[in-house]
Amino acid sequence: MWRVMETPLNCAEEQQPPPASWSTVTPQESTPDRNDKGNAVGFVLVHAGAGYHSESKAKEYKHVCKRACQRAVDRLKAGALAVDAVTAALVELEDSPFTNAGMGSNLNLSGEIECDASIMDGKSLRYGAVGAVSGINNPVLVANRLLSEAQKGKLSAGRIPPCFLVGRGAHDWAVNHGIPPCPSEKMATKFSLSAYKRNKHKMELAEKVDTGFNHHSKKRRQASETAAHHGCGCWAENTSTLNPYSTAVSTSGCGEHLIRTMLARECSSAMQCEDAHQALLEAMQNKFISSPFLASEDCVLGGVIVLRCCRCSDAQPSPDIQAILVEFLWSHTTESMCVGYMSAQDGKAKTHISRLPPGAVAGQSLAIEGGVCRLVNTPTTVD
Amino acid sequence: MWRVMETPLNCAEEQQPPPASWSTVTPQESTPDRNDKGNAVGFVLVHAGAGYHSESKAKEYKHVCKRACQRAVDRLKAGALAVDAVTAALVELEDSPFTNAGMGSNLNLSGEIECDASIMDGKSLRYGAVGAVSGINNPVLVANRLLSEAQKGKLSAGRIPPCFLVGRGAHDWAVNHGIPPCPSEKMATKFSLSAYKRNKHKMELAEKVDTGFNHHSKKRRQASETAAHHGCGCWAENTSTLNPYSTAVSTSGCGEHLIRTMLARECSSAMQCEDAHQALLEAMQNKFISSPFLASEDCVLGGVIVLRCCRCSDAQPSPDIQAILVEFLWSHTTESMCVGYMSAQDGKAKTHISRLPPGAVAGQSLAIEGGVCRLVNTPTTVD
Repeated sequence: MWRVMETPLNCAEEQQPPPASWSTVTPQESTPDRNDKGNAVGFVLVHAGAGYHSESKAKEYKHVCKRACQRAVDRLKAGALAVDAVTAALVELEDSPFTNAGMGSNLNLSGEIECDASIMDGKSLRYGAVGAVSGINNPVLVANRLLSEAQKGKLSAGRIPPCFLVGRGAHDWAVNHGIPPCPSEKMATKFSLSAYKRNKHKMELAEKVDTGFNHHSKKRRQASETAAHHGCGCWAENTSTLNPYSTAVSTSGCGEHLIRTMLARECSSAMQCEDAHQALLEAMQNKFISSPFLASEDCVLGGVIVLRCCRCSDAQPSPDIQAILVEFLWSHTTESMCVGYMSAQDGKAKTHISRLPPGAVAGQSLAIEGGVCRLVNTPTTVD
Repeated sequence: MWRVMETPLNCAEEQQPPPASWSTVTPQESTPDRNDKGNAVGFVLVHAGAGYHSESKAKEYKHVCKRACQRAVDRLKAGALAVDAVTAALVELEDSPFTNAGMGSNLNLSGEIECDASIMDGKSLRYGAVGAVSGINNPVLVANRLLSEAQKGKLSAGRIPPCFLVGRGAHDWAVNHGIPPCPSEKMATKFSLSAYKRNKHKMELAEKVDTGFNHHSKKRRQASETAAHHGCGCWAENTSTLNPYSTAVSTSGCGEHLIRTMLARECSSAMQCEDAHQALLEAMQNKFISSPFLASEDCVLGGVIVLRCCRCSDAQPSPDIQAILVEFLWSHTTESMCVGYMSAQDGKAKTHISRLPPGAVAGQSLAIEGGVCRLVNTPTTVD
């Protein structure tokens, strides 16, 4: 029904482990796309963070990506919109103790869990996001709900619906909209607690060395560091008169680096060039590693997953058969990035941990990989 | 010493009152620029919000803009960096009960005051911002401090310094860095409290009408609606090999509209075209009012102030005299926008409330105005 031609778009150069983070990329249409048989046509690409993925947990990272893809495809087959399929994938990633999202998230300096989530609809170009929200184990449900509430138009007395909520306000809005709260202590896992203790100890040791046992404790408390900035964490734009391709992008890595470079939006713009691989390579090199916005940084840490697609009519056996060409790519400057992908007609998801080659310097070099998939919208099997 | 040629760049079309908001634009150099006499060369442009400015309070709006300009110029003359001069101007605007910033800010649905502030340095391209922070009456001091702390490089144990903090974490970070807290109840004024009561009553009436006296109270609590997103509230980029002009932009208006269009960054990019007036007009029309990101909005509310400058050598009396040409513009789709501007060599600031012409529809049309100023870096008076 469809085939993945894993063109060896392989060009790896190099990278240091930031906290692993996650998210997914929307299938290209925000209305369910169905072929003549009534089967859903769609493709999902997810990641379980750009950072460092140990070999000992590789199986778990891949497994959660596989489950996330399966959830999205299940929803597409049930007729869900792309944003809802993506949300289902993200809930799976958030529920895993192995991802730095939802359950098992890294603790902040105060030992609290604060989460971010953002989602964008390529059709309406609307965006919903929450930042630094505590006590909600599936923050993507809040981002999704912000998006769907905004679609309903103005609130009472002509008020404009919010697209971005943070902190306590985000938590209360979520609970008032029926999203269940979760006690923060239930969101920490043995992994996240031991990482917190280890990092705090490391920091205290470093501060003692720096200042001869007399460091101000005031610098210790630091919370709510990043938030789900527009253009930084995700981007989606359907094809239009200006854009020949539909694109969807999700990023991961050091929040400050992603914010200051607006990496998701930059990669989406770059994807309007003909050669997707070359365009992503240049965007990661010029708009991220060598970005003037990060000129003072010696180590630029992030990763990106990209989908782009267009309808193509070449080599079709009949004019009523339409094929959608999906190109899927990932690139990272971190040690590793874990990805998963699946088409709605596929039996199961493929997963992969992309790693910088041996000797490559994290934060200064990059790895880039990807493939191509043709989704054929026809009642008969072509391939 | 310098002259303002107020070219009547006037082109008004149209606009509804959103909450008035504020901020300023950086002078172009982040290191103090001095002429041969040791006098500071610099130009400051501020606004007291794009929204609705009543005639009855026009004097107060203009007066605070004047004081803000004076503060910035005082700091420039004392040898301060542009970011610190801008911060001084903003403190003045935040301290005024007439602006929707700091003291006198609009209350959120829960009756609390939450503030945003952001600042960008055109030289380092660094950005510092706080969102939804309570109990700090000068949030710009936190944004400025984030910027200056980040300039110092990494924190202990290789941690990357934050550029954006929100909510409780932002408050605690500020207090731990010596910025004085302020009890929230002291930040409300009789104006902001009466506006809150009036708006809440209006909303309750509207909800009763909508639902026949049986509206869910759950929609009432809604806080932390917007935050100081990168690229949306302010932008600054000094001249470089890519950019012939140095630019600085500050926006105001409906937060959601500013976020979804990334208005500040779009206007800054547009300013690299030769004709500043035409470029801003087209940016406001195509990237804001008719933006595909706001396609579903019938009313797009915002305003922008823009500075751009370049060194020019035309018509100089001697080769060692260098002139800086500063173009300053403002444009808004709201009923009105209050601005003030001043050069470091000027005796006092000029202020102005720009209004849409009678009959123009707010949110669908725009006003655009501006002027040109030549700063001459010479020991003798030219003009």
